[in-house]
Amino acid sequence: MKVAVLGATGLVGRTFVKLLEGHPWFRVEKLVASERSAGKKYGELVEDAPEEFKDYVVASLTEFLEDPEVDLVFNALPASISRDVEEKLAKEIPVFTNARAHRYDEDVPILVPEVNKEHLELIKVQKEKRDWKGFIVTNPNCSTAILTVSLAALRSFGIKKVRVATMQAISGAGFSGLSAYAIHDNVIPFISGEEWKIENESRKILGTLRDDKIEFADFDISAIATRVPVIHGHTEAVFVELENPDVEEIRRAFEEFDPLKDLDLPSYEKPIVYTEVPQPRLHRDRGKGLTVTVGRLEEISGGVKYVVLGHNLVRGAAGGSVLNAELAYRLGYL
Amino acid sequence: MKVAVLGATGLVGRTFVKLLEGHPWFRVEKLVASERSAGKKYGELVEDAPEEFKDYVVASLTEFLEDPEVDLVFNALPASISRDVEEKLAKEIPVFTNARAHRYDEDVPILVPEVNKEHLELIKVQKEKRDWKGFIVTNPNCSTAILTVSLAALRSFGIKKVRVATMQAISGAGFSGLSAYAIHDNVIPFISGEEWKIENESRKILGTLRDDKIEFADFDISAIATRVPVIHGHTEAVFVELENPDVEEIRRAFEEFDPLKDLDLPSYEKPIVYTEVPQPRLHRDRGKGLTVTVGRLEEISGGVKYVVLGHNLVRGAAGGSVLNAELAYRLGYL
Amino acid sequence: MKVAVLGATGLVGRTFVKLLEGHPWFRVEKLVASERSAGKKYGELVEDAPEEFKDYVVASLTEFLEDPEVDLVFNALPASISRDVEEKLAKEIPVFTNARAHRYDEDVPILVPEVNKEHLELIKVQKEKRDWKGFIVTNPNCSTAILTVSLAALRSFGIKKVRVATMQAISGAGFSGLSAYAIHDNVIPFISGEEWKIENESRKILGTLRDDKIEFADFDISAIATRVPVIHGHTEAVFVELENPDVEEIRRAFEEFDPLKDLDLPSYEKPIVYTEVPQPRLHRDRGKGLTVTVGRLEEISGGVKYVVLGHNLVRGAAGGSVLNAELAYRLGYL
Amino acid sequence: MKVAVLGATGLVGRTFVKLLEGHPWFRVEKLVASERSAGKKYGELVEDAPEEFKDYVVASLTEFLEDPEVDLVFNALPASISRDVEEKLAKEIPVFTNARAHRYDEDVPILVPEVNKEHLELIKVQKEKRDWKGFIVTNPNCSTAILTVSLAALRSFGIKKVRVATMQAISGAGFSGLSAYAIHDNVIPFISGEEWKIENESRKILGTLRDDKIEFADFDISAIATRVPVIHGHTEAVFVELENPDVEEIRRAFEEFDPLKDLDLPSYEKPIVYTEVPQPRLHRDRGKGLTVTVGRLEEISGGVKYVVLGHNLVRGAAGGSVLNAELAYRLGYL
Repeated sequence: MKVAVLGATGLVGRTFVKLLEGHPWFRVEKLVASERSAGKKYGELVEDAPEEFKDYVVASLTEFLEDPEVDLVFNALPASISRDVEEKLAKEIPVFTNARAHRYDEDVPILVPEVNKEHLELIKVQKEKRDWKGFIVTNPNCSTAILTVSLAALRSFGIKKVRVATMQAISGAGFSGLSAYAIHDNVIPFISGEEWKIENESRKILGTLRDDKIEFADFDISAIATRVPVIHGHTEAVFVELENPDVEEIRRAFEEFDPLKDLDLPSYEKPIVYTEVPQPRLHRDRGKGLTVTVGRLEEISGGVKYVVLGHNLVRGAAGGSVLNAELAYRLGYL
Repeated sequence: MKVAVLGATGLVGRTFVKLLEGHPWFRVEKLVASERSAGKKYGELVEDAPEEFKDYVVASLTEFLEDPEVDLVFNALPASISRDVEEKLAKEIPVFTNARAHRYDEDVPILVPEVNKEHLELIKVQKEKRDWKGFIVTNPNCSTAILTVSLAALRSFGIKKVRVATMQAISGAGFSGLSAYAIHDNVIPFISGEEWKIENESRKILGTLRDDKIEFADFDISAIATRVPVIHGHTEAVFVELENPDVEEIRRAFEEFDPLKDLDLPSYEKPIVYTEVPQPRLHRDRGKGLTVTVGRLEEISGGVKYVVLGHNLVRGAAGGSVLNAELAYRLGYL
Repeated sequence: MKVAVLGATGLVGRTFVKLLEGHPWFRVEKLVASERSAGKKYGELVEDAPEEFKDYVVASLTEFLEDPEVDLVFNALPASISRDVEEKLAKEIPVFTNARAHRYDEDVPILVPEVNKEHLELIKVQKEKRDWKGFIVTNPNCSTAILTVSLAALRSFGIKKVRVATMQAISGAGFSGLSAYAIHDNVIPFISGEEWKIENESRKILGTLRDDKIEFADFDISAIATRVPVIHGHTEAVFVELENPDVEEIRRAFEEFDPLKDLDLPSYEKPIVYTEVPQPRLHRDRGKGLTVTVGRLEEISGGVKYVVLGHNLVRGAAGGSVLNAELAYRLGYL
Repeated sequence: MKVAVLGATGLVGRTFVKLLEGHPWFRVEKLVASERSAGKKYGELVEDAPEEFKDYVVASLTEFLEDPEVDLVFNALPASISRDVEEKLAKEIPVFTNARAHRYDEDVPILVPEVNKEHLELIKVQKEKRDWKGFIVTNPNCSTAILTVSLAALRSFGIKKVRVATMQAISGAGFSGLSAYAIHDNVIPFISGEEWKIENESRKILGTLRDDKIEFADFDISAIATRVPVIHGHTEAVFVELENPDVEEIRRAFEEFDPLKDLDLPSYEKPIVYTEVPQPRLHRDRGKGLTVTVGRLEEISGGVKYVVLGHNLVRGAAGGSVLNAELAYRLGYL
């Protein structure tokens, strides 16, 4: 399938491009960015561009929208312009997007393949309701993606209450979203909108598709999001109360969690690896950035506490989205 | 009163020395350290030693123990050797210590003046039971000190459950307790013994003295402790469930918390300042390091979440201990 | 004298304000910033504003220029708008500026009091030539200021050649001039225009006033400027070839360098302190940020090598400028 | 050939092991470490051990020395114990070592394949003189290795004088050689012995083998070595005076430097890549860590200035040593 990457020069866009290099199913045909970049070679704009894409001439968004000519779009544009762009494209073409613009629409899934692959059925509702040939599939906010992979392993223990404090990496704010003066030798316990996203997206993702709608999971969740001086890799301290806590079984659940191993998706990696002390510099690249690392599991009153970390640009953004498209392809939605 | 500082060349010891420079009640007479440092001038061992103490000749611990000749001792020695040293000294002299050795003894208070000044009464029990002329007063572990100051402001709302994730500074590990290779561009979600200390010391500190014993506070508390690349200042993300949560009243309680303002203690500073986004590099030195900064207060189901930070070496160690001694002096225990 | 601080909300502007708090000669009357800040209280804009200035209502630049009503101006505005603003003001009022706009004008001194106080005589040339009642005095670029203080101590040994590599702090780029993603875990060996400034400003500052003009010092100088992940404090590795190198005399020259000690300037601090291993985190605040620290002095073929560091916002910007004004005041130029 | 890695659990040792995974000529047979590690599986000691070596049982040094049974040894042991160990082994087996113990022996080459491959001839002198069947080949100190690769490209322009300031990474000090408290938010312009090594090793490496001896290159070199908060990658600011400076030809010389491209060594990578602004986080892994990045080239009086950086653990240690062994193998010395 011929694919385009929108926002290909940003941090998430570059990650899409790297992950799609040599992909067996998806061939990148178009790299799309702002007017400022249009007409330049990708290799001039992106120092470490993959060899394969160095000579691609970047297209402007306007130009691309006039005549997309691809079978699939990955979107890494900012949320502010994504709503219109995605709706325009989805009339004809499937869109897998990292932008939050449509995440909260009733008929749009927030997909994490290992967690809620059955939500892909919403595509049918969406296409019918909106009378589109294409559709929109979103991936969650970065820290939510990492958290929900770990929560999925706990689902069978009955999740009642979640308290999570995140320690998020610099690259989550993009190239220039965070000033060095602000974060150097510091922790900033505020990331605009982040806590709301974690609390709401996670309940949608872990929710149940019933009668063409997603019934949100009904656990009580509260998050405190902080930024820390780490380049990549979001770390999360999690306290969970469960219906049936059993710390040894939970450890096994983490270790054995591997729900899609039989689907043979090209990018799939074991989604969770258990390690006693997960650390972003050491573990963010596990499974090419798609594996989250869980550790420090201990019993607490009525549940467990643990630490989970993952690569915010891969598992938390581009990698999750590519996996979404692979799942849709494998399951016949493309 | 003539005082000695034990362990005067370590990070906590140096903080004691700086805080005691020009103190109106306590005059540092002796700086005590290991054999390795003994006989050298303090100014040779400690580059930024206060002018007043530069020419002090450092005494060895052995030498000091033979003939203390002071009225009060501040102890910043490592826990491993503190138990014996403190017991030997306390037979004759009051000891205010940052070491954990005696914190969990039934008759020894873990004192935070703004939180549990009534626990000072344990001194009487201690002196009688052990037949000592002196006594031992401990201050809590650094992250516990910071947490309990904030929890004290919430006591009247009925604390039921606490979940806290700490992001602790490098200086909490001492000069060489943490390698640069380990923490650079990293978060390490493991600090040996820390979570146990937070969970247990906080319930003792917020406990009630009844019949010569401390009845531990009975809230349910669980902590995840992490190390982050920040030089000073521990930041803590706190979720609290309360009997009577009212976020506006709680905000006011934080802002107005000032229980010892009438005691006129020389080092006393307003213990809590409320700021929307507390950050260690910006706020750790507030109130000369004795003020903790609380912020990000928001309602959650059955309670509130907030962030608190404080200077680990001052509020969390030496500064807390000096304040303990000032309180004991003011209340006639010295 | 009544003074105004232009650009009072930026990093350099804030430093001006802090340094001028309680100044015995200069009373800050006006804090001036962009339209965006105008009308707000300084304390709302600047979290750690000195108590004295918290309630000052910030004036817009336009408003201020209409009716300055002060006796002296300190300028921390960006270079781009400074040229016009300074020339307008200097018609009536002395301007001490951190902006580079006029540094390279023939009749404008780049002043470092301990290095070239005789260049103040250029003021007379400037006033006459431009027919101004006021005048403009600039301070050098931050890394140049630090370097020239150290070179001044070497002047009598005959400076022939200088090779200097700088390691400059994040705050030198302002609040948001440098993204965290760029500098985290990195060294960036490029700072736009910096090397040219070091090479040219230093020869002007160490030059000789002759016939109303400054004859540039004729040593050969080359610089490589880098940015490093340090919040404040520029460190510089310096190789100097000298006519008469004598490492012991040079050490003494560094230690004894104190040319203005008899002028009794309010902000004056010993300009150089010698320390074996100068380090920005440990030594940047020496002498309230006005003292540079020199160390690692060793003989090389035909000269010496050494390391010098200083606080870029104080010695390298606002502090130098305040000292310039104090010198001008003391010597009767105001 | 069967090889052993001594000191296999340290930072340099681990790098050896990674680089030798799947090597076409050298098969790692033995991983040797201290008594403390002996008997344990390599995968238990080293979290990110290559799959191939996870089950290797680590041998103690004592045990290994009794019966080496390998054809080649790579040594990453500390300098203090290396002298004896290497001499003992070299009686029978070739030793390629990162330790400095023998670097300054007259008959031992400090080898950088792209710079002085003809120095390998010293092996013959060494074997004869010491009556050994094996021999010792050292690689230089890390910052020297990086510097000399760049200087080799300038050799034909007549190197007269070198002034270099290094900004060295944390991993150069080993796992625990540098405390976080020391380097956080800091630059430390002192690394014990480093400047001497740079100044002396570089002149030996760039020297000429004449009559069985190395005549040191006679340029004048002086270094200032600093440590900066970067995890891997030493950056060096270099000023060079040359007999025949021509900045355009020099740029070409850097770009075209590729002296061993015809030897077909398994680990060989283009030794220099020219990039406008070299930066350790972006470029340290170029050419699997064997490529140094040169940039910021500009003319200065009588020469040029530039910046060079390379991976201290690969180009500056294990990678250089493996390349040395490959060269020796290819040229028939093994």
